[in-house]
Amino acid sequence: MAAHAIGDALPVPRDLARFVLSTGWADLPEAVRREGPRAFLNWLGCVYGGLHDPTYETAYRALGAMAGKGRASVLGRARRIDPIGATFFNTLSSCTHAFDDTHLATIAHPSGPAAAAAFTAAELMRADGKTMLAAMLLGIEVQCRVANMLAKPPAKTALGFYMTGLTGALGAAAAAGKILGLDEQRMIWALGIAAAQGAGFRQTHATMSNGFVRANAARSGMVAAVLAKDGFTCADNALEGGKGFAAVFGQPADLSHAIDGLGTRYELLDNAYKPYPCAIVIHPIIDACLDLAARADFTAADIASLELDVNPASVKLSSIVHPHDVEDARISLFHWAAAALIRRKAGVTEGGTAAANDPEIAALRGRIVAREDAKVMRQSARACLRLTDGRILESQIENARGSAAAPMSDDELKAKFSDQAAAVMTSAHAEALIDICWTLPERRNATSALVKRDRAAIAD
Amino acid sequence: MAAHAIGDALPVPRDLARFVLSTGWADLPEAVRREGPRAFLNWLGCVYGGLHDPTYETAYRALGAMAGKGRASVLGRARRIDPIGATFFNTLSSCTHAFDDTHLATIAHPSGPAAAAAFTAAELMRADGKTMLAAMLLGIEVQCRVANMLAKPPAKTALGFYMTGLTGALGAAAAAGKILGLDEQRMIWALGIAAAQGAGFRQTHATMSNGFVRANAARSGMVAAVLAKDGFTCADNALEGGKGFAAVFGQPADLSHAIDGLGTRYELLDNAYKPYPCAIVIHPIIDACLDLAARADFTAADIASLELDVNPASVKLSSIVHPHDVEDARISLFHWAAAALIRRKAGVTEGGTAAANDPEIAALRGRIVAREDAKVMRQSARACLRLTDGRILESQIENARGSAAAPMSDDELKAKFSDQAAAVMTSAHAEALIDICWTLPERRNATSALVKRDRAAIAD
Repeated sequence: MAAHAIGDALPVPRDLARFVLSTGWADLPEAVRREGPRAFLNWLGCVYGGLHDPTYETAYRALGAMAGKGRASVLGRARRIDPIGATFFNTLSSCTHAFDDTHLATIAHPSGPAAAAAFTAAELMRADGKTMLAAMLLGIEVQCRVANMLAKPPAKTALGFYMTGLTGALGAAAAAGKILGLDEQRMIWALGIAAAQGAGFRQTHATMSNGFVRANAARSGMVAAVLAKDGFTCADNALEGGKGFAAVFGQPADLSHAIDGLGTRYELLDNAYKPYPCAIVIHPIIDACLDLAARADFTAADIASLELDVNPASVKLSSIVHPHDVEDARISLFHWAAAALIRRKAGVTEGGTAAANDPEIAALRGRIVAREDAKVMRQSARACLRLTDGRILESQIENARGSAAAPMSDDELKAKFSDQAAAVMTSAHAEALIDICWTLPERRNATSALVKRDRAAIAD
Repeated sequence: MAAHAIGDALPVPRDLARFVLSTGWADLPEAVRREGPRAFLNWLGCVYGGLHDPTYETAYRALGAMAGKGRASVLGRARRIDPIGATFFNTLSSCTHAFDDTHLATIAHPSGPAAAAAFTAAELMRADGKTMLAAMLLGIEVQCRVANMLAKPPAKTALGFYMTGLTGALGAAAAAGKILGLDEQRMIWALGIAAAQGAGFRQTHATMSNGFVRANAARSGMVAAVLAKDGFTCADNALEGGKGFAAVFGQPADLSHAIDGLGTRYELLDNAYKPYPCAIVIHPIIDACLDLAARADFTAADIASLELDVNPASVKLSSIVHPHDVEDARISLFHWAAAALIRRKAGVTEGGTAAANDPEIAALRGRIVAREDAKVMRQSARACLRLTDGRILESQIENARGSAAAPMSDDELKAKFSDQAAAVMTSAHAEALIDICWTLPERRNATSALVKRDRAAIAD
């Protein structure tokens, strides 16, 4: 693999556009196709899980009344609006709990923008299930590959980059553009217009703007597809040009990461659905704590200390020892380790306000030490628990649940969906929606049954 | 002035928010107030000048039907839509010809986003003229100062940065947020949400996406103000935090540029209204060519060569010797120099398709040489014209027309407005609109007469 510098004659958007337009459902490897219903179900469950989050409710209150006319469904709201607004809201609900997914190499969250854009475009075009899922999968692929450009060597570690914000629009534009029928030139423009909206940084974490950055990326991708469809132009070399996306945002970027092995190697196979509603870099720590909790009886008062050896990214992204509110707690490895040890689980409840304010959890956070160790991989962690009675328990996690080597099973994904859907619908509706997602590849209309069931579920 | 590194405890958004909220029309220095009607008139003329540009028409066709309901006016369209959409369209029309303005230190174009956001917010809140103009002027100030963070030393020259795209949302958010009545905390959030949407790079130049990046920045700022007004949160340290705007996009950034001398020194006094519809770095070259053309009689065939000594930025941003279309020609210093020499003016016509395809202009471009000279300031240029009969003419421009040392006069700004408005309205309507802009500080309702006249002008 040769490294390519900025300004090299690498037509990245053209190659990505050709790949997206020439690849249909039948061309995708079986292992990739299998992720279609799984990724879509995972996304849809997160939509329902986020409907009552203050982030979503505040944004809907502020912006919902300004939405334009259209026939694109806002899931969980029984409302049809313009496709750009629908893409925004359907992504925002899906990511408020940070429960969706993560591409580990880049810490991007690709399926929200790609799934929301594919869903809305499919609804507009009355696309079939295979078309919608293929567009979503290809959108995820484009997003992960563009994120690789910025995240992989020679790029320096740049954990301030909000990868989903910088690259999500490209995934959404690819997904929507494929379904909307863009030709090659217009797909190239769409990818460029999407890149020209790439934005965001991680300082917004632990605030409502965290979800907003992702939803805005999805919205931007739909805008790009809609504009390009009508002939709105962009530079053909928006990604690789000397004053383009890679030159400006790369530290530095290697363009070959975007196109090497295109159609052969699929990045989305390294995209993990999350078993826990928090940053992926906290997951192996939670696994270790749940393992310790399963192997011994102890209460919070019995714990003298917990020592963790973790990847440096875990500390850099989630090092708040004493969170001052629930938003802080959700991104604190100390909070999640303490909650997992004491409550023996790590779901939406453990990331909620009551858990964040639990005095036992709060006290235990202060008895936890996290050491950076560059030899520990991002999906791994070691934990050493010392109890006041002298017992010492150790746990070593090689591959966190949900990571590429230990992916969530179909049943786990269904259970995750049901847990989140339970907040807004009966289990009968949830099971019907699971069945719809699972049978998407056979559906002649990808969205009609889903939207009908969504409305019935919310109305009941 | 001490340099401040990322992570220093410099509450940049708080200081900016307090400045914007505590400064009223009466608090602004007279020299700054004087720019209120001038900047607004300059912006409004560019709105009318851009109404028939394919960039605007294509975007309106694609996105206009999806606009939401609201009472915000789209200028030149006799239509009311949601305020976010109106801010987008009113900025887009104003910047399609790159005829608006430039903050020379950063090559940002601040008044489009700030004026469009202030206009729409004023219309919604029925604000008076002083309130609207003060908000616009403060929005321009915020935008220029945040751009300074990214553009001034120790930042390396980063001409790929599209400063208006990266910082325009902050100006628009400040302007709209002040009129919408945000308190300090919400203004801090609005600036953060705006920064989290900062996007764009200059590879989009010479395409429709050039104007789009600016209009998207304005739209993003209005979104930020609307969200923050309803309590949508962001990090208080979105600009200066270790994973914030300055850390991620600075190369590197010095945060003190944003706040030093706030309220004492006004960046907007270094904002130039453009006499020519092209990049500011081409302006001194045009001035030199117009000077040469005024001093001697010659035809295109008489010109042997033109040698230019220019600031390196002129070459880096506008070095297309042989443009392949009108969009390329508009950003080519060679095109503008040739057109100014032969046609003896440099207006919208000289940047149009006929001029771009004129064989005499095309041939002359190839006889022009541009040498980079770091000792030549951005507002300066030297030109040496050799004629076939042996004559040699020289011209040296110290301060281009429109630059801080040679600003456009009120009469020149009015003439610039009239020239652009002539494409869409009678001179009587144009004169009435000039009068309205000029008397804005005395108007109890900043927008009512303007909107009424706008509709009448377009209908006639």
